[in-house]
Amino acid sequence: MSWSLEPIGILHSCYKEKFAVPRQPGLAPSAYATLELLPPYNQPLCVEGLEQFSHLWLTFVFHQNLEQGWKARVRPPRLGGNKKIGVFASRSTFRPNGLGLSVVKLEGVDCSKGVKLQLSGIDLVDGTPIVDIKPYLPWADSLPQATAGWAPETPALLSVHFSPLAEKQLTTHKDGQQLKQLLIEVLSQNPRPAYQQTDPERIYGVLLADLDVRFRYPADNRLEVTELLPGRS
Amino acid sequence: MSWSLEPIGILHSCYKEKFAVPRQPGLAPSAYATLELLPPYNQPLCVEGLEQFSHLWLTFVFHQNLEQGWKARVRPPRLGGNKKIGVFASRSTFRPNGLGLSVVKLEGVDCSKGVKLQLSGIDLVDGTPIVDIKPYLPWADSLPQATAGWAPETPALLSVHFSPLAEKQLTTHKDGQQLKQLLIEVLSQNPRPAYQQTDPERIYGVLLADLDVRFRYPADNRLEVTELLPGRS
Repeated sequence: MSWSLEPIGILHSCYKEKFAVPRQPGLAPSAYATLELLPPYNQPLCVEGLEQFSHLWLTFVFHQNLEQGWKARVRPPRLGGNKKIGVFASRSTFRPNGLGLSVVKLEGVDCSKGVKLQLSGIDLVDGTPIVDIKPYLPWADSLPQATAGWAPETPALLSVHFSPLAEKQLTTHKDGQQLKQLLIEVLSQNPRPAYQQTDPERIYGVLLADLDVRFRYPADNRLEVTELLPGRS
Repeated sequence: MSWSLEPIGILHSCYKEKFAVPRQPGLAPSAYATLELLPPYNQPLCVEGLEQFSHLWLTFVFHQNLEQGWKARVRPPRLGGNKKIGVFASRSTFRPNGLGLSVVKLEGVDCSKGVKLQLSGIDLVDGTPIVDIKPYLPWADSLPQATAGWAPETPALLSVHFSPLAEKQLTTHKDGQQLKQLLIEVLSQNPRPAYQQTDPERIYGVLLADLDVRFRYPADNRLEVTELLPGRS
């Protein structure tokens, strides 16, 4: 018994690489993407009425991880990267069938040329293949009383600072203020792997929106954006 | 670009046929099922820590509908069965890739022989192939403020009554009281197709748990269970 899945759309995301993508949707509300539907799904009829919903479920494929397969137990970053948990008790990106699930905010529906959905609050890397879209139904999907054992609340945040150089580079960027907000939301999630020791000298880099963002950890729980270089667009 | 999906488990459900399955999970809290994991996933390591979560997401395949394919627009029962909406603005069971999504309550984890998960609040028919299990994370998944256009709240309920014969049959059944509660929850969802006219004489039947349940609609918004016959077990 097996079935074939094909993409119904491709996500064009501000996250140009996996590093620094938040571990769940909604943690960086300013993160944006365009979901471009593919033929034969890119007809306005397929999304008729969709604009009445504020949020959508996307089911997608962890396409960058499929070749690495799955293991029975994983090490979630939330547990410090050294404690193991069953793969089905986690949202690990390495899992049987390689399916992901993400709730995103629907900002707009553009049917002027094919179908494009404007989204925010996403946690998906650029190029992610989408295999289904469903409306979010609060009376069925919202369970605020649910208990979530080892991951009971949002991850702790780092405080994010900007060097004088980075501040200056933001002021000259055409979308500087929105980018600053995005950088704060994304980098406060602590993108560094949990198992790495703090090295205050080490400079990290991540491709985000049209930037190559450089940052370091001058102290525990503190992150400094040092410089903004041109990324790929 | 396409991928192959295979089941990680099979659901053994109190819903023995599609007719009368609620249109979303959680609407019939007494509905129960056992999810039996399949090799190589039926090892305790795969579900280690899962018992810490009260609710799970199941991603599954609408296996009974796949051959009928999909259409760009569907007629949701909630809209009376005569108004159309885009397939991606609906949770129709006829959709590209045939994937379903359901949040269920985890009642227990049994690793005494393979892995079996005891579930409740389900909306899935017996034999449904499951392709993923993920923990429900209230801080990421619960959005009570989300707006849901044409389906803003739970469906209206019918009042459910029992004939003297059905009442008597329940008192002699070993699980009579639990079954009565399940029948009330399921049948109050109004399983009759929305496009059918009310015929007070017509007797409907549905296989539920170990019963073949017979019922009729003596008046609008009123359902009467007339008789309980042996179903298949």
